[in-house]
Amino acid sequence: MAKKGSLLSFRPDIKVVDATIRDGGLVNDFHFSDEFVKKLYEANLKAGVDYMEFGYKASKDIFDESEFGPWKFCDEDAIRRIVGDNDTDMKIAVMADVGRCDYKRDIINRADSAIDLVRIATYINTMPGAINMAEYCHNLGYETTINIMAISNATGAEIDEALELIGNSPADGVYIVDSYGALYMEEIEELAEKYLNMAEKYGKFVGIHAHNNQQLAFANTIAALTNGVSYLDATINGMGRGAGNCSTEQLLGFLKNPKYDLIPLLKFMENYMEPMKAEGVTWGYNIPYLLTGQMNRHPRSAISATAQKRTDYLRFLLELDDKS
Amino acid sequence: MAKKGSLLSFRPDIKVVDATIRDGGLVNDFHFSDEFVKKLYEANLKAGVDYMEFGYKASKDIFDESEFGPWKFCDEDAIRRIVGDNDTDMKIAVMADVGRCDYKRDIINRADSAIDLVRIATYINTMPGAINMAEYCHNLGYETTINIMAISNATGAEIDEALELIGNSPADGVYIVDSYGALYMEEIEELAEKYLNMAEKYGKFVGIHAHNNQQLAFANTIAALTNGVSYLDATINGMGRGAGNCSTEQLLGFLKNPKYDLIPLLKFMENYMEPMKAEGVTWGYNIPYLLTGQMNRHPRSAISATAQKRTDYLRFLLELDDKS
Repeated sequence: MAKKGSLLSFRPDIKVVDATIRDGGLVNDFHFSDEFVKKLYEANLKAGVDYMEFGYKASKDIFDESEFGPWKFCDEDAIRRIVGDNDTDMKIAVMADVGRCDYKRDIINRADSAIDLVRIATYINTMPGAINMAEYCHNLGYETTINIMAISNATGAEIDEALELIGNSPADGVYIVDSYGALYMEEIEELAEKYLNMAEKYGKFVGIHAHNNQQLAFANTIAALTNGVSYLDATINGMGRGAGNCSTEQLLGFLKNPKYDLIPLLKFMENYMEPMKAEGVTWGYNIPYLLTGQMNRHPRSAISATAQKRTDYLRFLLELDDKS
Repeated sequence: MAKKGSLLSFRPDIKVVDATIRDGGLVNDFHFSDEFVKKLYEANLKAGVDYMEFGYKASKDIFDESEFGPWKFCDEDAIRRIVGDNDTDMKIAVMADVGRCDYKRDIINRADSAIDLVRIATYINTMPGAINMAEYCHNLGYETTINIMAISNATGAEIDEALELIGNSPADGVYIVDSYGALYMEEIEELAEKYLNMAEKYGKFVGIHAHNNQQLAFANTIAALTNGVSYLDATINGMGRGAGNCSTEQLLGFLKNPKYDLIPLLKFMENYMEPMKAEGVTWGYNIPYLLTGQMNRHPRSAISATAQKRTDYLRFLLELDDKS
């Protein structure tokens, strides 16, 4: 696979997707104030970010509205409170989980919506549902991506089959999602090659969503983009479930496209991220996340260990290994 | 350059070098208790670590003994208190800075010393002094490496000239040292190719010492080893100056050689690293380190900002840029 550009080149196909509210919302149950979201929207605009993801389109039949902030559901009026008509170059994204949303009720015509892109999150075994959702949302006028989660647990044959389904669907793009933060750069490059082969054949794009369990989220994002992946997920300060994500401040420091500007994000961090962290909202790399990443496990046990401030690392490892 | 092995292979040439006391000593002025160092020595032995670096051979004429713990100077009797005759397969290393040691006085015959390897730290402009030291230590019977620091600030021509000097010296190995945590994997791979070309010609080995300013220390170490670099520096919990280093627990999770075992290190972390961190000894990635890394600057301003708990990131950036 040919390398796409050098350290000094920039690629017009690159899109930076800020997922702070969506993946960060998994840390604080989406309890961001409107002021926080509005200031992040303004900072992203000034920073040249291409897409801002506002949260999930989760079903209120499944999830209790009283337990979550508004960005779990992303009602149109909630987004409109922040973006108005969003008369900007930055596009608005939401995520919808297969089986956890009521998309036929909750996703309206794009012409009437503040949303531009619906990102459909699926496991490999719910691909048919994801394809149905992509068709539905495409027909409403949305850009769509299919984000295959926990890809480090899928077999090569499963991935090939899923990619072929996506190739024949109206989805505009497909995402490599390293939900467990288990993958190394070499594996990301192999997946990127596989995804890009399909994407080039069918005229789609490929994105990357990395997790930082092994402190490789930024490195894996670089590995993906260097090999032709163009939609790059990032969050401010890496805020996201468990060990978090590739941080926008890392990524913008690497990208050489002069449209991107780190300074608005530095100001946002000072004024909004630091106070939130001071209140005890916690995410990011630690030893339990490293261990679940190394062992290719869901981070839930590490999230629990972190909440309990456990430092009995050996026992934690043995529990992971079912050898305690 | 051919890739050396795959994710499932292991390479017998790989050597893991624990630099916790040496690089970590820059965080706490080498004030480690003998118990801490002894338990780390025992943990490294059980973990299969190949070399343990005990600290610096600094000159007591230059540095005040009352200001530092014993590992700034690594007197023979201090090392002997920990290792006795070191009747093990793990080798003992020290670092000596060109111009900051009195090697003709303080480095004795290897036959009478607990030390196996002298790592000579130099900037590119003090290479002649480094060569003299390598010759001297080699003649005393030591293994030697020349570690060219701050390589991200050297020109290609300077590096070529330095490597040719090292090639013609008796040094056994040469290190890529990313002192500022400024380099990306692509640059590490280019340096590795350059260093390995020299090393293969002259029968030497190449090592990597990475810093974590951009959370790329582990990724850069993987990039180096995947391309043939064999001596891999790591520290427990990444303990080291500023943003710290590639952590031993990350690295051992990646290496597939069954001689390495993470478990003794997990126990050491629980019992010794966690209490030290609880006492306020601080290192590791943060936004000021990211910014000095992105801008290829010495981390001293970020160390100062961290000590002051500064979160005025924009002002910090402007100061770095001489634009405040």
